[in-house]
Amino acid sequence: MPLATPAGYRALDEATLAAYLETVPTIAGRLGGAAADWRVAEVGDGNLNLVFLVEGPNDGVCVKQALPYVRLVGDGWPLPLERAWFEHEATQIQARHAAERLPAILHYDPQLYLIAMERLAPHIIMRRGMIAGTVYPAFVDHMVEYTANALYFTSDLALRAGEKKRLVAQFAGNTELCKITEDLIFTDPYRIAELNRWTSPELDDVALAIRGDDGLKRAVSLLKLKFLSRGEALLHGDLHTGSIMVTATDTKVIDPEFAFFGPMGFDVGKLIGNLLLSYFSQAGHEQEAGERDDYRAWITATIERFWNGFERRFIELWLANRTGDAFPADLFENADTEGSDAGRRSLGQAQHIFMRELFEDCLGYAGCSMIRRILGLAHNIDMEWIEDQGRRAACERRTLGLAVDLVKQARQIPSIEAVTAKAAALQAAA
Amino acid sequence: MPLATPAGYRALDEATLAAYLETVPTIAGRLGGAAADWRVAEVGDGNLNLVFLVEGPNDGVCVKQALPYVRLVGDGWPLPLERAWFEHEATQIQARHAAERLPAILHYDPQLYLIAMERLAPHIIMRRGMIAGTVYPAFVDHMVEYTANALYFTSDLALRAGEKKRLVAQFAGNTELCKITEDLIFTDPYRIAELNRWTSPELDDVALAIRGDDGLKRAVSLLKLKFLSRGEALLHGDLHTGSIMVTATDTKVIDPEFAFFGPMGFDVGKLIGNLLLSYFSQAGHEQEAGERDDYRAWITATIERFWNGFERRFIELWLANRTGDAFPADLFENADTEGSDAGRRSLGQAQHIFMRELFEDCLGYAGCSMIRRILGLAHNIDMEWIEDQGRRAACERRTLGLAVDLVKQARQIPSIEAVTAKAAALQAAA
Repeated sequence: MPLATPAGYRALDEATLAAYLETVPTIAGRLGGAAADWRVAEVGDGNLNLVFLVEGPNDGVCVKQALPYVRLVGDGWPLPLERAWFEHEATQIQARHAAERLPAILHYDPQLYLIAMERLAPHIIMRRGMIAGTVYPAFVDHMVEYTANALYFTSDLALRAGEKKRLVAQFAGNTELCKITEDLIFTDPYRIAELNRWTSPELDDVALAIRGDDGLKRAVSLLKLKFLSRGEALLHGDLHTGSIMVTATDTKVIDPEFAFFGPMGFDVGKLIGNLLLSYFSQAGHEQEAGERDDYRAWITATIERFWNGFERRFIELWLANRTGDAFPADLFENADTEGSDAGRRSLGQAQHIFMRELFEDCLGYAGCSMIRRILGLAHNIDMEWIEDQGRRAACERRTLGLAVDLVKQARQIPSIEAVTAKAAALQAAA
Repeated sequence: MPLATPAGYRALDEATLAAYLETVPTIAGRLGGAAADWRVAEVGDGNLNLVFLVEGPNDGVCVKQALPYVRLVGDGWPLPLERAWFEHEATQIQARHAAERLPAILHYDPQLYLIAMERLAPHIIMRRGMIAGTVYPAFVDHMVEYTANALYFTSDLALRAGEKKRLVAQFAGNTELCKITEDLIFTDPYRIAELNRWTSPELDDVALAIRGDDGLKRAVSLLKLKFLSRGEALLHGDLHTGSIMVTATDTKVIDPEFAFFGPMGFDVGKLIGNLLLSYFSQAGHEQEAGERDDYRAWITATIERFWNGFERRFIELWLANRTGDAFPADLFENADTEGSDAGRRSLGQAQHIFMRELFEDCLGYAGCSMIRRILGLAHNIDMEWIEDQGRRAACERRTLGLAVDLVKQARQIPSIEAVTAKAAALQAAA
């Protein structure tokens, strides 16, 4: 029996999409010609939605439509159509501060839960580019700017409390998408769960060890509690290399349908975790050992530049935009005592405490997002495309080694350079 | 010009209340007789609302009505009537787990923003009882039960994420009341602000020192950020000895109109802070030095028993009610490895980490709530009723001494006994 959907909703297909788009003047005008001239291809390779590319005589558009269930699993796993609304809302908010990093939204249909946006070309999904060993020189600066802006400007440092609470309430409705994260990232990989899968029998021992590692499960559960209870900023919610489209000179972040107010470290950590996962997967894509040494060095340099850049940029934004209710400016200027220098120094110390805590969260979430891609339901093509099972398992084992360390030892890790050094040491021992 | 109010709203007075209550059968029946037989007295001594006591031939009721402004300040400070709705909602939720500690709600009028509840008799406001030096033997066990239940059962440990997010969204609307706390507790006492007042000139030096104490302002601002961003549980939001009515055998918590999802440490900390404030105020109410030594010893013992009892009870609830999405039971039982002992031990360690963090938050919030009552807008009668200004200032100075320590040194304070020992040492040095 098909799932019940609201009146007016119907899932489109390659045959019906063009007729629909013909009724939307902004899209029809952009494509040029008439519906008969448009080529439509369903290309969704994500886990949740329909994605169509439509090419007209003048231009192309990308159309994303929510299905009432998880595409990867089928209609046995219902999922609210409203995730399209949350994606659209989150994009509108992020566009205020990071518009250049987002695809332009052309049209939103609240009945069809459908978003039409610019067709990004010649962009490709970054994960695929990294599997091919492609360097993206613009990526790091772009992602520093995106994450720092998107997080800073939706935090209590930039927003007045009333406005922030209004947004928190709005995104609290995206609970089913959050639940996917809660279950698949923070829970299932650490217990026997039907949906888990891993490279077996090679990784059976480490899967068992991880399910039995009390210290790890404790640390993961504390990270889950933060994910559940800390509304620090509006997160993308699924910020990995599969949610980023790139060229050598451009970077766009897509798919913010998991958006909600959560801990900032989750977004930056998930991105770093996925870069590390790519790092360890490189050995599986080499024809000859060592052939991707330079590429690995680019990845570790990118990770370092990303975190360090994020930290610097976030603090710059903090100093330049003290518009929120947290850390009121006049508490850090000491107008009636020894002048503003001490106040500024004190704010600097507060920022140091703040960023250190964010860094530790980031490491923990990075580790969790690596583990779930190897022991949980949803795997990444970085590893899946390594055909030789033994080689894949070796790459995955090294990934897990670092991941467990990041989660359990976050407090002891002094810097992002210590993380990349650990990664390099594990790789060198291979 | 009077403030605009919604259609149907009118502020009642002693003359109009009886006619209104006559139209509410449950209330009229409870009071007995007819409106002409009822004695009505407006007794509000809080800062925000109208409060009426109504006595009929059979029984009494208490009626609380929100005004569209802050009563303490007047109509120059508008405040949403909806706070009555939040109070009513919070009471309904807390009543599921702590009904015996709450007055029974008899009637709610959404147009008049009016709550009628049982008349508590012979209860008095605990703050007044403490000024008189009265011991309340039932208080500590009752408040342990109330705080542990009210906080535990609205946290992610007890609630499923979807249900919690629904409640978070609902209470996010109570932003104006939160703003009062944000401004008056976490901001104004630390800067020159029109509304600040203190015992002057005696405390001018310490007020200046506090406005210039960068480490203190940093710590307070980090506590404010937590207050703004951490939705750990449904808080009462204003849990001090003026929100508690007591007899020797009963304890009732009233006035949860500041309710919202915030950091648990705020509720328990505010209560402890107010007990400490009472402790230091006792010297001002002594006819002879030392006459209240026993009472002071009762207060410190109460503080110790309250925190230790809260911690123990919260963990008992955690072990017995693992119904929430945080800390899933099957991650702490290790069914497939060495059995459940190690899992339980590990959960114990997680609980230790959790409670230590909550304790540090509690100390910080205790300190903030003491400072605001001495340097901010709203003072407490504990100190205000000390007529001799010099004696009052001496009591207040000792209070501030401990408060600053609690905020700045929270991480270094090993136990609640260390707090009461500091208090006793400050008092002994007097």
